[in-house]
Amino acid sequence: MAGEHERRCLAAQRAMATRGVDCLVVAPSSDLIYLAGIAVEPSERLLALVLLPFGPPTLVLPRLEATKLAEVAAFASLAVWEETEDPVALVARLVTSLGADSPVVAVGERTFAGTLLRLQRALPEATFVSADAILAELRLIKSPAEVALMRAAGAMADEAYVHLLGEKLSGRTETEVADLLAGLLRRAGQESVSFVIVGSGPNSAAPHHAPGGRRLAPGDVVVLDFGGTHEHYQSDMTRTIAVGEPPSAAKRVYELVAQAQEVAFRTVRPGVTASEVDAAARAHLTAAGFGDLFIHRTGHGLGLDVHEEPYIVAGNPLPLREGMVFSIEPGVYLPGEFGVRVEDIVVVTADGAERLNNAPREFFSLG
Amino acid sequence: MAGEHERRCLAAQRAMATRGVDCLVVAPSSDLIYLAGIAVEPSERLLALVLLPFGPPTLVLPRLEATKLAEVAAFASLAVWEETEDPVALVARLVTSLGADSPVVAVGERTFAGTLLRLQRALPEATFVSADAILAELRLIKSPAEVALMRAAGAMADEAYVHLLGEKLSGRTETEVADLLAGLLRRAGQESVSFVIVGSGPNSAAPHHAPGGRRLAPGDVVVLDFGGTHEHYQSDMTRTIAVGEPPSAAKRVYELVAQAQEVAFRTVRPGVTASEVDAAARAHLTAAGFGDLFIHRTGHGLGLDVHEEPYIVAGNPLPLREGMVFSIEPGVYLPGEFGVRVEDIVVVTADGAERLNNAPREFFSLG
Repeated sequence: MAGEHERRCLAAQRAMATRGVDCLVVAPSSDLIYLAGIAVEPSERLLALVLLPFGPPTLVLPRLEATKLAEVAAFASLAVWEETEDPVALVARLVTSLGADSPVVAVGERTFAGTLLRLQRALPEATFVSADAILAELRLIKSPAEVALMRAAGAMADEAYVHLLGEKLSGRTETEVADLLAGLLRRAGQESVSFVIVGSGPNSAAPHHAPGGRRLAPGDVVVLDFGGTHEHYQSDMTRTIAVGEPPSAAKRVYELVAQAQEVAFRTVRPGVTASEVDAAARAHLTAAGFGDLFIHRTGHGLGLDVHEEPYIVAGNPLPLREGMVFSIEPGVYLPGEFGVRVEDIVVVTADGAERLNNAPREFFSLG
Repeated sequence: MAGEHERRCLAAQRAMATRGVDCLVVAPSSDLIYLAGIAVEPSERLLALVLLPFGPPTLVLPRLEATKLAEVAAFASLAVWEETEDPVALVARLVTSLGADSPVVAVGERTFAGTLLRLQRALPEATFVSADAILAELRLIKSPAEVALMRAAGAMADEAYVHLLGEKLSGRTETEVADLLAGLLRRAGQESVSFVIVGSGPNSAAPHHAPGGRRLAPGDVVVLDFGGTHEHYQSDMTRTIAVGEPPSAAKRVYELVAQAQEVAFRTVRPGVTASEVDAAARAHLTAAGFGDLFIHRTGHGLGLDVHEEPYIVAGNPLPLREGMVFSIEPGVYLPGEFGVRVEDIVVVTADGAERLNNAPREFFSLG
């Protein structure tokens, strides 16, 4: 990937030139993985990749991390700071070295606000903007190599789910089912588990329910929403199942939600807007009288982050382009009763879309 | 803890008044756990606690999280935003409702920079500062209840380590040892594992080494640095052991590092500065000729975050006060050979300090 990272830094520099940005500062986040392959947790010790209009990037990093990271980003210049130095001053010096009167500095979206405030104080003449104008745009279109990694990640999630279908769930707690699913994701090859939602019975009506001590019992509707990573790229899928015989209302809702998912999928092709995909799913549920119980957007982009652009939401005029990857996940939630959601990741192709999740989409009843 | 959170919000409002801050905005982070007991991951959907000079806080949150969080922060007013609304405009309206000409807005240190940039655009008349001036100061002194939770967290880390001493490590990979230690932390009662560093042989010379595929073998020095949480409060301890017979140089270095740790511990009492504690450990290692191989600060504060104030580092003039909790963790690192670190968490008492880690500090040799 080393050549790939250099290519991405060059593309970022081209975008900086187009947008009049003099300096790009990226702290630990998926942006840093994208540009330099460096996957570290953000901490109070500032580590940042600084990209000027020309030349290789500079990696500003604490002495403590120098041994570990020097070889990871071999194409970057290193600016190591000692424990008693001020790393913000070091970044500021890189900016002032450009000699611009009022430089424009783009800061990674998920950099700490505290770091931005210190940079603003150190560079009172500079204008600060979000780096998303540059980086979200670059990351929005996945290369064939990136799509291949995400296809593999999706297949791992599929495999984990299919194994789960062979298990008896009745009597287990949500947390136990979540642990089981996490283990199956790892066994299928995911290097890390990003999240597992298990919402059972009335808990299935909370879209982001945290698994708890509730035991699954016959009659429960269960929402399973889970994902992990493959070489830092995320998987994300949702299936809804029943334990034993579900309420008949749930069967009707399930059918509608699965149809809405399919209807939205069929609208996807280059040129269609993100809001049109959302509208397609929403119209299907609204026509059946369930529109007001579909309380979230239809989907979100996926890549190095679980949620990134493009957002499939009403009002987003973004036209889809080949290589965009996002979820289609309509849901209907009846508070206190049950919820149903079906989610696949899709990639926009030259003339339509391909699903990256292909596990069966039936409303299975498990023991 | 509900009453405790209300008390903390009131204390934050008192500090705001003293410092001329009109509004405090806190996104998901340990600050939000501190003020409201809300532990959620930050996401692109803005969730923030907004504190004005008087009255209960307002929790700005997406519709999607409303079901889950409404009861958690029962003392807060809820401002729920729909998927197509702009939550930043909602926060801005709360600020402008104050009618101040040029309001001062304090933003949580780890809020996303992108959020801060959007707030700055929405409130061009406002001055933005880091909330750390208020929150880090409040969080700096632990209450007896907080110290009790941290004492329990420390005892769990001790217990995990003592169980590890009964294991055979030779032949296992660093990753396997890290997994073993993570399991022991959970078995000892930690709700989550925050980090596990296992650096073996030459890897022990990288203070923040990520466990990898290297197999432990006789003659290895192994640095074990690990921690987890108990009711959101962190533990953090480091022990260095040997597999089989270590190099004799390592025995000499170990003795010096353990002495430096003890010397620094004995300097701790109210009124002594953070830099004096650092200097005590450093002087001991420098006198023995190893000062330049002690490449990091002596310690960091611990609480809801693994790293927080006070930082035990040269140049920090902060006088210690009763209730401060921090690590003392000198280390010596010989690149390509081995490293040694010994770390305990300590709390400043009325007339000295108490260790929150009490597992044996000998240079054990394991099979």
